[in-house]
Amino acid sequence: MRVIVPFAPDAPKTRLAGTLSVDERSAFARAMLDDVIGALDEMGLDPEVLSTGPVDVGFPVVRDDRALTPAVNAVLRETEGTTAVVMADLPLVTTGVLRRLFEAAGDVVLAPGRAGGTNALVVRHPAFQVNFHGTSFLDHLAVARDIGANTSVIDSHRLATDIDEADDFVEVLLHGDGNAREWLEENGFRIVVRDNHVTLTRDQE
Amino acid sequence: MRVIVPFAPDAPKTRLAGTLSVDERSAFARAMLDDVIGALDEMGLDPEVLSTGPVDVGFPVVRDDRALTPAVNAVLRETEGTTAVVMADLPLVTTGVLRRLFEAAGDVVLAPGRAGGTNALVVRHPAFQVNFHGTSFLDHLAVARDIGANTSVIDSHRLATDIDEADDFVEVLLHGDGNAREWLEENGFRIVVRDNHVTLTRDQE
Repeated sequence: MRVIVPFAPDAPKTRLAGTLSVDERSAFARAMLDDVIGALDEMGLDPEVLSTGPVDVGFPVVRDDRALTPAVNAVLRETEGTTAVVMADLPLVTTGVLRRLFEAAGDVVLAPGRAGGTNALVVRHPAFQVNFHGTSFLDHLAVARDIGANTSVIDSHRLATDIDEADDFVEVLLHGDGNAREWLEENGFRIVVRDNHVTLTRDQE
Repeated sequence: MRVIVPFAPDAPKTRLAGTLSVDERSAFARAMLDDVIGALDEMGLDPEVLSTGPVDVGFPVVRDDRALTPAVNAVLRETEGTTAVVMADLPLVTTGVLRRLFEAAGDVVLAPGRAGGTNALVVRHPAFQVNFHGTSFLDHLAVARDIGANTSVIDSHRLATDIDEADDFVEVLLHGDGNAREWLEENGFRIVVRDNHVTLTRDQE
Protein backbone atom coordinates (compact mmCIF):
# COMPACT_ATOMS: atom_id res chain seq x y z
CA MET A 1 0.00 0.00 0.00
CA ARG A 2 1.23 3.45 -0.95
CA VAL A 3 0.55 6.07 1.74
CA ILE A 4 0.47 9.75 0.80
CA VAL A 5 0.37 12.71 3.19
CA PRO A 6 -0.39 15.96 1.31
CA PHE A 7 1.29 19.05 2.72
CA ALA A 8 1.52 22.70 1.67
CA PRO A 9 4.51 24.29 3.41
CA ASP A 10 4.02 27.60 1.65
CA ALA A 11 0.38 28.22 2.58
CA PRO A 12 -0.09 26.92 6.07
CA LYS A 13 -3.53 27.13 7.63
CA THR A 14 -4.78 30.56 6.64
CA ARG A 15 -7.90 30.23 8.81
CA LEU A 16 -5.59 30.36 11.84
CA ALA A 17 -4.29 33.77 10.77
CA GLY A 18 -6.22 35.54 13.55
CA THR A 19 -4.66 33.33 16.19
CA LEU A 20 -1.11 32.49 15.07
CA SER A 21 1.56 34.46 13.23
CA VAL A 22 2.83 33.16 9.89
CA ASP A 23 5.87 31.58 11.54
CA GLU A 24 3.73 30.03 14.24
CA ARG A 25 1.36 28.62 11.67
CA SER A 26 4.30 27.04 9.86
CA ALA A 27 5.69 25.53 13.04
CA PHE A 28 2.32 24.22 14.14
CA ALA A 29 1.53 22.77 10.71
CA ARG A 30 4.88 21.01 10.82
CA ALA A 31 4.18 19.62 14.30
CA MET A 32 0.89 18.18 13.02
CA LEU A 33 2.61 16.68 9.96
CA ASP A 34 5.18 15.04 12.23
CA ASP A 35 2.39 13.49 14.31
CA VAL A 36 0.72 12.01 11.23
CA ILE A 37 3.94 10.73 9.69
CA GLY A 38 5.11 9.44 13.05
CA ALA A 39 1.99 7.32 13.50
CA LEU A 40 2.31 5.90 9.98
CA ASP A 41 5.99 5.16 10.54
CA GLU A 42 5.21 3.45 13.84
CA MET A 43 2.92 1.11 11.92
CA GLY A 44 5.79 0.07 9.67
CA LEU A 45 4.45 1.93 6.66
CA ASP A 46 6.53 4.14 4.40
CA PRO A 47 4.66 7.43 4.12
CA GLU A 48 5.45 9.83 1.29
CA VAL A 49 4.83 13.54 1.71
CA LEU A 50 3.08 15.02 -1.32
CA SER A 51 4.30 18.58 -1.02
CA THR A 52 3.86 21.85 -2.89
CA GLY A 53 7.31 22.99 -1.74
CA PRO A 54 10.53 21.81 -0.17
CA VAL A 55 10.19 20.10 3.18
CA ASP A 56 12.77 18.10 5.11
CA VAL A 57 11.04 15.32 7.03
CA GLY A 58 13.29 12.28 6.79
CA PHE A 59 10.75 10.57 4.52
CA PRO A 60 10.38 10.61 0.74
CA VAL A 61 8.85 13.80 -0.63
CA VAL A 62 6.91 13.90 -3.90
CA ARG A 63 6.89 17.47 -5.20
CA ASP A 64 3.82 18.70 -7.04
CA ASP A 65 3.07 22.41 -7.31
CA ARG A 66 -0.54 21.91 -8.26
CA ALA A 67 -3.58 22.17 -6.02
CA LEU A 68 -4.49 19.26 -3.77
CA THR A 69 -7.05 17.63 -6.08
CA PRO A 70 -4.94 17.29 -9.27
CA ALA A 71 -1.85 16.37 -7.26
CA VAL A 72 -3.61 13.53 -5.46
CA ASN A 73 -5.30 12.37 -8.65
CA ALA A 74 -1.92 12.16 -10.38
CA VAL A 75 -0.72 9.85 -7.60
CA LEU A 76 -3.89 7.74 -7.87
CA ARG A 77 -3.45 7.40 -11.63
CA GLU A 78 0.22 6.44 -11.48
CA THR A 79 -0.11 3.94 -8.62
CA GLU A 80 -1.09 0.33 -9.12
CA GLY A 81 -2.75 -1.30 -6.15
CA THR A 82 -3.95 0.38 -2.99
CA THR A 83 -3.30 4.05 -2.27
CA ALA A 84 -4.07 5.70 1.06
CA VAL A 85 -4.25 9.45 1.53
CA VAL A 86 -4.06 10.87 5.04
CA MET A 87 -4.23 14.62 5.56
CA ALA A 88 -1.39 16.33 7.41
CA ASP A 89 -3.61 18.31 9.79
CA LEU A 90 -4.89 15.37 11.83
CA PRO A 91 -2.83 15.49 15.02
CA LEU A 92 -5.24 13.19 16.87
CA VAL A 93 -4.45 10.19 14.69
CA THR A 94 -3.28 7.08 16.47
CA THR A 95 -2.00 3.81 15.11
CA GLY A 96 -5.28 2.30 16.35
CA VAL A 97 -7.55 4.46 14.24
CA LEU A 98 -5.23 4.25 11.23
CA ARG A 99 -5.44 0.48 11.50
CA ARG A 100 -9.26 0.74 11.43
CA LEU A 101 -8.92 2.88 8.29
CA PHE A 102 -6.47 0.64 6.47
CA GLU A 103 -8.15 -2.64 7.44
CA ALA A 104 -11.69 -1.59 6.49
CA ALA A 105 -13.09 -3.45 3.50
CA GLY A 106 -14.21 -1.61 0.41
CA ASP A 107 -12.99 -0.36 -2.95
CA VAL A 108 -13.04 3.09 -1.41
CA VAL A 109 -12.77 3.77 2.32
CA LEU A 110 -13.61 7.30 3.44
CA ALA A 111 -13.02 9.08 6.74
CA PRO A 112 -15.23 12.18 6.79
CA GLY A 113 -13.99 15.38 8.35
CA ARG A 114 -16.21 17.68 10.32
CA ALA A 115 -18.27 19.94 8.02
CA GLY A 116 -18.22 17.68 5.03
CA GLY A 117 -14.56 17.25 4.16
CA THR A 118 -12.66 14.04 3.54
CA ASN A 119 -9.74 13.68 5.93
CA ALA A 120 -8.42 10.29 4.92
CA LEU A 121 -9.21 7.71 2.31
CA VAL A 122 -8.08 4.37 0.98
CA VAL A 123 -8.51 3.74 -2.74
CA ARG A 124 -8.51 0.23 -4.19
CA HIS A 125 -10.41 1.00 -7.39
CA PRO A 126 -8.46 2.11 -10.49
CA ALA A 127 -11.10 4.60 -11.68
CA PHE A 128 -11.59 6.52 -8.45
CA GLN A 129 -10.52 10.17 -8.49
CA VAL A 130 -10.77 12.71 -5.68
CA ASN A 131 -12.31 16.16 -5.59
CA PHE A 132 -11.47 18.06 -2.44
CA HIS A 133 -13.68 21.08 -3.05
CA GLY A 134 -16.72 21.83 -0.89
CA THR A 135 -18.56 18.88 0.59
CA SER A 136 -15.99 16.43 -0.67
CA PHE A 137 -17.28 13.61 1.49
CA LEU A 138 -20.63 13.59 -0.35
CA ASP A 139 -18.83 14.07 -3.68
CA HIS A 140 -16.59 11.09 -2.97
CA LEU A 141 -19.56 8.89 -2.07
CA ALA A 142 -21.20 9.92 -5.37
CA VAL A 143 -18.02 9.29 -7.41
CA ALA A 144 -17.67 5.83 -5.89
CA ARG A 145 -21.30 5.03 -6.66
CA ASP A 146 -20.93 6.24 -10.25
CA ILE A 147 -17.99 3.95 -10.96
CA GLY A 148 -19.54 0.96 -9.18
CA ALA A 149 -17.04 1.00 -6.31
CA ASN A 150 -18.29 -0.17 -2.93
CA THR A 151 -17.58 2.17 -0.06
CA SER A 152 -16.86 1.99 3.65
CA VAL A 153 -17.05 4.97 5.97
CA ILE A 154 -14.87 5.20 9.08
CA ASP A 155 -16.68 6.74 12.04
CA SER A 156 -13.88 8.37 14.03
CA HIS A 157 -13.68 11.60 15.99
CA ARG A 158 -9.88 11.49 15.68
CA LEU A 159 -10.00 11.29 11.89
CA ALA A 160 -12.88 13.79 11.69
CA THR A 161 -10.91 16.41 13.59
CA ASP A 162 -8.78 18.35 11.13
CA ILE A 163 -7.37 21.48 12.68
CA ASP A 164 -8.57 24.52 10.76
CA GLU A 165 -9.55 27.02 13.42
CA ALA A 166 -8.50 27.95 16.94
CA ASP A 167 -11.60 26.19 18.34
CA ASP A 168 -10.12 22.95 17.09
CA PHE A 169 -7.10 23.44 19.38
CA VAL A 170 -9.37 22.38 22.25
CA GLU A 171 -9.57 18.89 20.74
CA VAL A 172 -5.78 18.69 20.46
CA LEU A 173 -5.36 19.71 24.10
CA LEU A 174 -8.03 17.20 25.18
CA HIS A 175 -7.11 14.18 23.07
CA GLY A 176 -3.68 14.70 21.51
CA ASP A 177 -0.44 13.36 22.90
CA GLY A 178 2.16 14.27 20.29
CA ASN A 179 4.06 17.17 18.78
CA ALA A 180 1.00 19.33 18.05
CA ARG A 181 -0.24 19.21 21.61
CA GLU A 182 3.24 19.90 22.91
CA TRP A 183 3.58 22.87 20.55
CA LEU A 184 0.28 24.36 21.71
CA GLU A 185 1.19 23.92 25.37
CA GLU A 186 4.67 25.37 24.92
CA ASN A 187 3.11 28.34 23.17
CA GLY A 188 0.75 29.09 26.02
CA PHE A 189 -2.54 27.61 24.87
CA ARG A 190 -4.75 26.22 27.59
CA ILE A 191 -8.32 25.06 28.02
CA VAL A 192 -10.48 27.08 30.38
CA VAL A 193 -13.97 26.23 31.54
CA ARG A 194 -16.28 29.24 31.81
CA ASP A 195 -19.99 28.96 32.56
CA ASN A 196 -19.83 25.24 31.98
CA HIS A 197 -18.48 25.83 28.48
CA VAL A 198 -14.98 24.90 27.34
CA THR A 199 -12.93 27.62 25.65
CA LEU A 200 -9.36 28.31 24.73
CA THR A 201 -7.01 30.87 26.23
CA ARG A 202 -3.41 31.87 25.52
CA ASP A 203 -1.03 32.91 28.26
CA GLN A 204 1.04 36.04 27.71
CA GLU A 205 4.70 35.27 27.31
CA MET B 1 -28.03 -3.70 30.96
CA ARG B 2 -30.07 -0.68 31.96
CA VAL B 3 -30.03 2.07 29.30
CA ILE B 4 -30.87 5.63 30.31
CA VAL B 5 -31.49 8.56 27.96
CA PRO B 6 -31.54 11.86 29.88
CA PHE B 7 -33.93 14.48 28.50
CA ALA B 8 -35.05 17.94 29.64
CA PRO B 9 -38.34 18.77 27.87
CA ASP B 10 -38.68 22.07 29.71
CA ALA B 11 -35.30 23.59 28.76
CA PRO B 12 -34.53 22.50 25.26
CA LYS B 13 -31.24 23.56 23.72
CA THR B 14 -30.87 27.18 24.78
CA ARG B 15 -27.78 27.66 22.60
CA LEU B 16 -30.04 27.26 19.58
CA ALA B 17 -32.14 30.24 20.69
CA GLY B 18 -30.69 32.47 17.97
CA THR B 19 -31.68 29.98 15.28
CA LEU B 20 -34.90 28.29 16.37
CA SER B 21 -37.98 29.49 18.24
CA VAL B 22 -38.89 27.87 21.56
CA ASP B 23 -41.45 25.64 19.89
CA GLU B 24 -39.01 24.70 17.16
CA ARG B 25 -36.34 23.86 19.73
CA SER B 26 -38.82 21.58 21.50
CA ALA B 27 -39.80 19.84 18.29
CA PHE B 28 -36.19 19.41 17.17
CA ALA B 29 -35.09 18.13 20.59
CA ARG B 30 -37.91 15.63 20.45
CA ALA B 31 -36.89 14.48 16.95
CA MET B 32 -33.34 13.87 18.21
CA LEU B 33 -34.65 11.97 21.24
CA ASP B 34 -36.75 9.79 18.94
CA ASP B 35 -33.67 9.00 16.84
CA VAL B 36 -31.68 7.92 19.90
CA ILE B 37 -34.48 5.87 21.43
CA GLY B 38 -35.31 4.39 18.05
CA ALA B 39 -31.76 3.10 17.57
CA LEU B 40 -31.72 1.59 21.07
CA ASP B 41 -35.11 -0.02 20.49
CA GLU B 42 -33.96 -1.42 17.16
CA MET B 43 -31.15 -3.16 19.06
CA GLY B 44 -33.68 -4.92 21.28
CA LEU B 45 -32.82 -2.83 24.31
CA ASP B 46 -35.38 -1.23 26.60
CA PRO B 47 -34.34 2.40 26.93
CA GLU B 48 -35.69 4.50 29.79
CA VAL B 49 -36.01 8.26 29.43
CA LEU B 50 -34.67 10.08 32.49
CA SER B 51 -36.74 13.23 32.24
CA THR B 52 -37.10 16.47 34.17
CA GLY B 53 -40.72 16.75 33.04
CA PRO B 54 -43.56 14.85 31.43
CA VAL B 55 -42.81 13.32 28.04
CA ASP B 56 -44.84 10.78 26.09
CA VAL B 57 -42.50 8.54 24.14
CA GLY B 58 -43.92 5.03 24.34
CA PHE B 59 -41.03 3.96 26.57
CA PRO B 60 -40.67 4.03 30.35
CA VAL B 61 -39.96 7.49 31.77
CA VAL B 62 -38.10 8.00 35.04
CA ARG B 63 -38.97 11.44 36.40
CA ASP B 64 -36.29 13.36 38.27
CA ASP B 65 -36.47 17.14 38.61
CA ARG B 66 -32.84 17.54 39.55
CA ALA B 67 -29.95 18.55 37.31
CA LEU B 68 -28.36 15.98 35.03
CA THR B 69 -25.48 15.00 37.32
CA PRO B 70 -27.45 14.12 40.50
CA ALA B 71 -30.22 12.50 38.47
CA VAL B 72 -27.81 10.19 36.62
CA ASN B 73 -25.88 9.42 39.81
CA ALA B 74 -29.12 8.38 41.52
CA VAL B 75 -29.71 5.89 38.70
CA LEU B 76 -26.14 4.59 38.94
CA ARG B 77 -26.47 4.11 42.70
CA GLU B 78 -29.79 2.29 42.53
CA THR B 79 -28.87 -0.01 39.63
CA GLU B 80 -27.02 -3.28 40.08
CA GLY B 81 -25.02 -4.40 37.08
CA THR B 82 -24.28 -2.43 33.97
CA THR B 83 -25.80 0.98 33.29
CA ALA B 84 -25.47 2.81 29.99
CA VAL B 85 -26.20 6.51 29.58
CA VAL B 86 -26.76 7.88 26.08
CA MET B 87 -27.50 11.58 25.62
CA ALA B 88 -30.68 12.56 23.79
CA ASP B 89 -29.02 15.07 21.45
CA LEU B 90 -27.06 12.55 19.37
CA PRO B 91 -29.09 12.21 16.17
CA LEU B 92 -26.19 10.62 14.30
CA VAL B 93 -26.23 7.47 16.43
CA THR B 94 -26.61 4.21 14.59
CA THR B 95 -27.03 0.70 15.89
CA GLY B 96 -23.49 0.06 14.64
CA VAL B 97 -21.82 2.68 16.79
CA LEU B 98 -24.01 1.86 19.80
CA ARG B 99 -22.90 -1.74 19.45
CA ARG B 100 -19.25 -0.56 19.55
CA LEU B 101 -20.09 1.38 22.72
CA PHE B 102 -21.91 -1.41 24.51
CA GLU B 103 -19.49 -4.17 23.48
CA ALA B 104 -16.31 -2.29 24.46
CA ALA B 105 -14.49 -3.81 27.42
CA GLY B 106 -13.84 -1.79 30.54
CA ASP B 107 -15.34 -0.94 33.92
CA VAL B 108 -16.13 2.44 32.43
CA VAL B 109 -16.57 3.10 28.70
CA LEU B 110 -16.61 6.75 27.64
CA ALA B 111 -17.63 8.37 24.37
CA PRO B 112 -16.24 11.93 24.39
CA GLY B 113 -18.22 14.74 22.88
CA ARG B 114 -16.66 17.55 20.95
CA ALA B 115 -15.20 20.20 23.27
CA GLY B 116 -14.68 17.96 26.25
CA GLY B 117 -18.11 16.64 27.09
CA THR B 118 -19.18 13.05 27.64
CA ASN B 119 -21.93 12.02 25.24
CA ALA B 120 -22.38 8.39 26.19
CA LEU B 121 -20.97 6.04 28.77
CA VAL B 122 -21.26 2.52 30.06
CA VAL B 123 -20.68 1.94 33.77
CA ARG B 124 -19.83 -1.49 35.15
CA HIS B 125 -18.16 -0.32 38.37
CA PRO B 126 -20.31 0.24 41.47
CA ALA B 127 -18.34 3.26 42.72
CA PHE B 128 -18.34 5.31 39.50
CA GLN B 129 -20.27 8.57 39.60
CA VAL B 130 -20.67 11.15 36.85
CA ASN B 131 -20.02 14.87 36.83
CA PHE B 132 -21.31 16.55 33.71
CA HIS B 133 -19.90 20.01 34.34
CA GLY B 134 -17.15 21.54 32.20
CA THR B 135 -14.65 19.14 30.71
CA SER B 136 -16.54 16.12 31.90
CA PHE B 137 -14.58 13.73 29.70
CA LEU B 138 -11.34 14.50 31.55
CA ASP B 139 -13.19 14.46 34.88
CA HIS B 140 -14.64 11.05 34.13
CA LEU B 141 -11.21 9.66 33.21
CA ALA B 142 -9.89 10.99 36.52
CA VAL B 143 -12.80 9.58 38.54
CA ALA B 144 -12.30 6.17 36.96
CA ARG B 145 -8.57 6.26 37.72
CA ASP B 146 -9.22 7.29 41.34
CA ILE B 147 -11.53 4.33 42.01
CA GLY B 148 -9.29 1.84 40.19
CA ALA B 149 -11.72 1.32 37.31
CA ASN B 150 -10.24 0.56 33.92
CA THR B 151 -11.50 2.69 31.08
CA SER B 152 -12.16 2.40 27.35
CA VAL B 153 -12.71 5.37 25.09
CA ILE B 154 -14.87 5.10 21.97
CA ASP B 155 -13.52 7.09 19.04
CA SER B 156 -16.63 8.02 17.08
CA HIS B 157 -17.63 11.11 15.16
CA ARG B 158 -21.27 10.08 15.47
CA LEU B 159 -21.11 9.86 19.25
CA ALA B 160 -18.92 12.98 19.50
CA THR B 161 -21.48 15.07 17.64
CA ASP B 162 -24.01 16.40 20.12
CA ILE B 163 -26.15 19.10 18.61
CA ASP B 164 -25.73 22.32 20.58
CA GLU B 165 -25.40 25.02 17.96
CA ALA B 166 -26.63 25.72 14.46
CA ASP B 167 -23.20 24.79 13.04
CA ASP B 168 -23.85 21.26 14.24
CA PHE B 169 -26.90 21.03 11.94
CA VAL B 170 -24.45 20.61 9.07
CA GLU B 171 -23.39 17.25 10.52
CA VAL B 172 -27.02 16.12 10.79
CA LEU B 173 -27.69 17.08 7.17
CA LEU B 174 -24.48 15.32 6.07
CA HIS B 175 -24.63 12.13 8.11
CA GLY B 176 -28.08 11.78 9.69
CA ASP B 177 -30.90 9.69 8.27
CA GLY B 178 -33.63 9.91 10.88
CA ASN B 179 -36.18 12.24 12.42
CA ALA B 180 -33.74 15.06 13.20
CA ARG B 181 -32.52 15.29 9.63
CA GLU B 182 -36.07 15.13 8.34
CA TRP B 183 -37.12 17.90 10.75
CA LEU B 184 -34.29 20.16 9.60
CA GLU B 185 -35.06 19.57 5.94
CA GLU B 186 -38.79 20.12 6.42
CA ASN B 187 -38.00 23.36 8.22
CA GLY B 188 -35.90 24.71 5.38
CA PHE B 189 -32.34 24.06 6.52
CA ARG B 190 -29.86 23.29 3.78
CA ILE B 191 -26.13 23.05 3.33
CA VAL B 192 -24.52 25.57 1.02
CA VAL B 193 -20.92 25.62 -0.13
CA ARG B 194 -19.42 29.11 -0.34
CA ASP B 195 -15.77 29.76 -1.09
CA ASN B 196 -15.00 26.09 -0.58
CA HIS B 197 -16.47 26.27 2.94
CA VAL B 198 -19.62 24.50 4.05
CA THR B 199 -22.26 26.61 5.76
CA LEU B 200 -25.91 26.40 6.67
CA THR B 201 -28.81 28.33 5.22
CA ARG B 202 -32.54 28.40 5.92
CA ASP B 203 -35.10 28.87 3.19
CA GLN B 204 -37.86 31.41 3.76
CA GLU B 205 -41.24 29.77 4.15
